[in-house]
Amino acid sequence: MTLAPAEAARSTRSVAVARRPFRIPGFKVAAASSAMRYHRRLDVALICADQAASAAGVFTQNRFCAAPVQWCRSQLADDPEGIKAVVVNAGIANACTGNRGLEMARRTAELAATALKVDSSRVLVASTGVIGPQIELEPLARVMPRLAAELRRDGWQQAAEAIMTTDTRPKLATAQLDLDGRSVTIGGIAKGSGMIAPNMATMLAFVCTDAAVDARVLNDMLRRSAQTTLNRVSVDGDTSTNDTVLALASGHAGNDPIAAIDSPSARRFQVGLEAVMLDLAKQIVLDGEGATKFIEIQVRGARCAGDARTIAFTIAHSPLVKTAFFGEDPNWGRIVAAAGRAGVELDPQRTTLSFADVVVFRDGMPVSNPDVEQQAGAVFRRKEIRVQLDVGIGSGECVVYTCDLSYDYVKINADYRS
Amino acid sequence: MTLAPAEAARSTRSVAVARRPFRIPGFKVAAASSAMRYHRRLDVALICADQAASAAGVFTQNRFCAAPVQWCRSQLADDPEGIKAVVVNAGIANACTGNRGLEMARRTAELAATALKVDSSRVLVASTGVIGPQIELEPLARVMPRLAAELRRDGWQQAAEAIMTTDTRPKLATAQLDLDGRSVTIGGIAKGSGMIAPNMATMLAFVCTDAAVDARVLNDMLRRSAQTTLNRVSVDGDTSTNDTVLALASGHAGNDPIAAIDSPSARRFQVGLEAVMLDLAKQIVLDGEGATKFIEIQVRGARCAGDARTIAFTIAHSPLVKTAFFGEDPNWGRIVAAAGRAGVELDPQRTTLSFADVVVFRDGMPVSNPDVEQQAGAVFRRKEIRVQLDVGIGSGECVVYTCDLSYDYVKINADYRS
Repeated sequence: MTLAPAEAARSTRSVAVARRPFRIPGFKVAAASSAMRYHRRLDVALICADQAASAAGVFTQNRFCAAPVQWCRSQLADDPEGIKAVVVNAGIANACTGNRGLEMARRTAELAATALKVDSSRVLVASTGVIGPQIELEPLARVMPRLAAELRRDGWQQAAEAIMTTDTRPKLATAQLDLDGRSVTIGGIAKGSGMIAPNMATMLAFVCTDAAVDARVLNDMLRRSAQTTLNRVSVDGDTSTNDTVLALASGHAGNDPIAAIDSPSARRFQVGLEAVMLDLAKQIVLDGEGATKFIEIQVRGARCAGDARTIAFTIAHSPLVKTAFFGEDPNWGRIVAAAGRAGVELDPQRTTLSFADVVVFRDGMPVSNPDVEQQAGAVFRRKEIRVQLDVGIGSGECVVYTCDLSYDYVKINADYRS
Repeated sequence: MTLAPAEAARSTRSVAVARRPFRIPGFKVAAASSAMRYHRRLDVALICADQAASAAGVFTQNRFCAAPVQWCRSQLADDPEGIKAVVVNAGIANACTGNRGLEMARRTAELAATALKVDSSRVLVASTGVIGPQIELEPLARVMPRLAAELRRDGWQQAAEAIMTTDTRPKLATAQLDLDGRSVTIGGIAKGSGMIAPNMATMLAFVCTDAAVDARVLNDMLRRSAQTTLNRVSVDGDTSTNDTVLALASGHAGNDPIAAIDSPSARRFQVGLEAVMLDLAKQIVLDGEGATKFIEIQVRGARCAGDARTIAFTIAHSPLVKTAFFGEDPNWGRIVAAAGRAGVELDPQRTTLSFADVVVFRDGMPVSNPDVEQQAGAVFRRKEIRVQLDVGIGSGECVVYTCDLSYDYVKINADYRS
């Protein structure tokens, strides 16, 4: 039986996820400072598989997708024999760079391939940073031999630092599970703090495991997991040109290879994969540009899950709602008004809204209990706020994660390029 | 022949619109301070027709539409005999207020009806302000007799002030045209500076004219004009519960009554109506909460006008784009990325982007001329910026108006209720 995404999301609660450095048998990593755009910080990461790994990718839906995204799509479509390495640079996105940009992505892969003595078709590339400029090959060529020489099992922390742009902290998550009596590790790193929206974001995530997983099954599991994790977060509603999530499986754990998505081991692995990706997703929101609050928006009672998602994201994207969170003002009217303009069916007379478990609006009317405003105010002063909206029509539900909109968001984004 | 909206929009350029107080034969207005929520300022306006006026309304599409919106819809549907008065209060929106809110809207109309000695079914009501609280009748009852007694031809400036919430200045626009040898005046007042999005906004606009216009034709013209004017602006993408645009025509000018939408006089009148409404729409954007820039986004080359509109609003709503305008950073990558995530067809290889007439991006690539960055920077330092995007597919086009996203937007909306 196929695991429904909602079930998977629920069962992820049973997998413990840790936000700390990890090691994944079968993979080594390294990071370096190329000074291509940033100075005095790590800005290039190299992930290398000891042997070719099963690989899968999920990418931005933006029609101006960046050159490295095009390169990855093409290699993953053409190459069923597995991936040897991933090169990531931060600072320049290599987006909107035309044919020359495609050439630069290819040559970046070639630089890594040469250093690692593999075929460039087995090397994936990801970039993040400013749109428009061409990346420079010379800084990459200079650091690549050293990256190859310095690959190590415990380099994930540095790799997570190297892929940051406006992120204020590196993002790592890891979980362990048991498959066929073998201990399996899943570990991921991610970056992203602005231009965050569903269908990816300026979000890069790289998840590696020592489990043995067939590439097609890994692809299905990655897609499914992205739907309930990284595609459920929003910082500002902007979807970038470069969003990339890659999963690599080395097979070093020695489990029976997962070859069917509906097998018991696939289901268990998916729970772990979703748990790691959900944790990375939450870290991205927590590090949202200028964010001071983490907001979980639960919508239920919609006609279908898609409608619930539309309502949840309309609320999550509303600048008026986000500034109210920043101001610690339990202004439920803005949330209800956002739901009402989402363009999907709801029943105003049967709509109920709660903050944490404080019901502020019921059956189309504010709750008149005089304590409610004070209780809601206390919820809004917390760092993490849960919003629950029931729109009174059906059984469709969806949860999304977002943050508030602060002075610092404006400051970061008004100043970013200059 | 029916006038296409695009033609009408072009021909409005030939009508001179002034941003100044006006008089409209057949109407008197008054304003007062009820102290219902604001203190020491005007907060109630009364517009009164000497005789019953032809009337039409366009309202929010938000499913939580406010009580006064429901009242107006009902009266306009039921009452073909014309409207005698409009009462507007600022401070409390009377939205999400249930059956009691409907009762309050009805009783507000009755208060005005009693003071003016007309039937309450001939009185329209509009409210703006905070969502949730009930309006209070006592303050309205106290000021209503004085409002009725102080009605005057030249009260429009005070009325425009009385309907403000976070607006920083009153908004008035007027135009004159000639119909059948008679001079006709169109004058409008509006409020709105946050929660501004297409399908109306926390936007109230009241447009009066002394032209003689059949109510059904006025309704058609108002709808058509709203499409190309007030529905083409965005401050923050939030559509309020209260948006209301009313048009009233007294007939005092003595022209032959406009009874068919495709008549020459209807076409001329529509040009004037659109010119006044477009000017009010621009004033709303210029007074956008915290706005420091006025942005005109012209999209063309889309498959159809609807696609062009989708792209234009995706750009206009993007916080990353809006903060770049605030930062005076000609970050074309964010605009192109927003277009790319709009979810409609475009051709990245044939996409061209200009700021004023400075081409920064052509055929999928940034323009490499070294002067371009400097020229684009100079455009971004202006108060009014024109963005032109051609997406290279077809002939669909659309223009929308928006503003930047500044610290002050966050400040105003984080503090508004408290």
